[in-house]
Amino acid sequence: MSVALVGAGPGDPDLLTMKAARLLATADVVVHDALVGDDVLALIPDHVERIDVGKRVGKPVPQEMISTLLVELGRRDQLVVRLKGGDPFVFGRGGEEALALAEAGVDFEVVPGITSSVAAPAAAGVPVTHRGVSAAFTVVTGHRRAGEPSVDWRSLARVGGTIVILMGVTHRRSIAAELIAGGLPAETPVAAVRSATTDDEVVVRCSLADLGHAAIESPATIVVGAVASFDLRCLRSGAATTSLR
Amino acid sequence: MSVALVGAGPGDPDLLTMKAARLLATADVVVHDALVGDDVLALIPDHVERIDVGKRVGKPVPQEMISTLLVELGRRDQLVVRLKGGDPFVFGRGGEEALALAEAGVDFEVVPGITSSVAAPAAAGVPVTHRGVSAAFTVVTGHRRAGEPSVDWRSLARVGGTIVILMGVTHRRSIAAELIAGGLPAETPVAAVRSATTDDEVVVRCSLADLGHAAIESPATIVVGAVASFDLRCLRSGAATTSLR
Repeated sequence: MSVALVGAGPGDPDLLTMKAARLLATADVVVHDALVGDDVLALIPDHVERIDVGKRVGKPVPQEMISTLLVELGRRDQLVVRLKGGDPFVFGRGGEEALALAEAGVDFEVVPGITSSVAAPAAAGVPVTHRGVSAAFTVVTGHRRAGEPSVDWRSLARVGGTIVILMGVTHRRSIAAELIAGGLPAETPVAAVRSATTDDEVVVRCSLADLGHAAIESPATIVVGAVASFDLRCLRSGAATTSLR
Repeated sequence: MSVALVGAGPGDPDLLTMKAARLLATADVVVHDALVGDDVLALIPDHVERIDVGKRVGKPVPQEMISTLLVELGRRDQLVVRLKGGDPFVFGRGGEEALALAEAGVDFEVVPGITSSVAAPAAAGVPVTHRGVSAAFTVVTGHRRAGEPSVDWRSLARVGGTIVILMGVTHRRSIAAELIAGGLPAETPVAAVRSATTDDEVVVRCSLADLGHAAIESPATIVVGAVASFDLRCLRSGAATTSLR
């Protein structure tokens, strides 16, 4: 009867919204991807059908097939939850799925989730905005796909705000070079956060000049800007901090 | 004994995180501002002390006084919840309060919330990113304060992504002029969303050229870019849509 495109947040199941938790508890089927962590999946009741369309597990499922699957499931008399890491509309391809559902006449709803682009920096104690330091932040993908609109990194360097790069580990060297060519100082602070808000969280800090050869594993959220030198964290065990400086 | 800086999300209490809801239910005192809606405040148990430091209610409470208040409350043997609209680190001044608490040696924790910068566009059916259309989005304040770092709007116009402006209603005319001077076409779609995710939600759509004289009441979230022409909403009653075109 309907499909809910639901953001699962950054990893900690406690950061699901109340609405997301209720939808998971009442779903007939949950379609999830690889970015949704085990702790969140553990909230799904045992009797609920789960379909893993994770793009990093074995052969990736093409987006068109996922959209087709959602339309087919949505035509049954069932509540379908399409669970996505972070927020459905922040590089979650929720727009494509919503369009496919709308075109097929299937009722749908978009339920925002906590985006890693803000929560991963926060987990590292980095505020993406801070009075007197940063009055803007840009969230950008470092992934390059054919047909994707290009981002003008040199103009981005001149905006004057924080830069949050998702899916940027692979191309971090060339991204750093572009940002420096655009005018960002080589010593601009960088913080990279992997597995934010989970027990496996790792934070790596370095300068923009060192980003290219810093030991950062994918997937990670990379924050570039003066705010990346902040460490406004509560003291927690289990959060490893590595400094290259 | 400790202070939780908690994001209350965009308005709908169902979009609180599970953690935020639990903290509100167990708090000894809640310090909130004007951007937190009545539906969220209704979740606070009656016996819990509430302190309204809303900056739009009567005389605004200076930020320094709020930070001092949090330090004093945090030194008591109590759970203090500092509740902020949206996310504490997205123009929420959470960084300043965290710094004050850290300097005073008061234990604190930052709990992310759903930021209006993503959820307000989503409520209007606008995805801030969309494959083939937008590979970046910038969240920027339109508010101008002394001592605030300036944003280079003309460079921002050249980045090539979606622009989300918070607190920009007052200066929307000059902001639009700067973006057009930076190279954005005058016909670039704009969507402005007020009271997103609540019963009072209003969406206004216009072009960038018309933004300056569009009837938009503050506070609103203004989205500029090709994605603003999307309307990927479920059909809901109560959401008024006005088109200037």
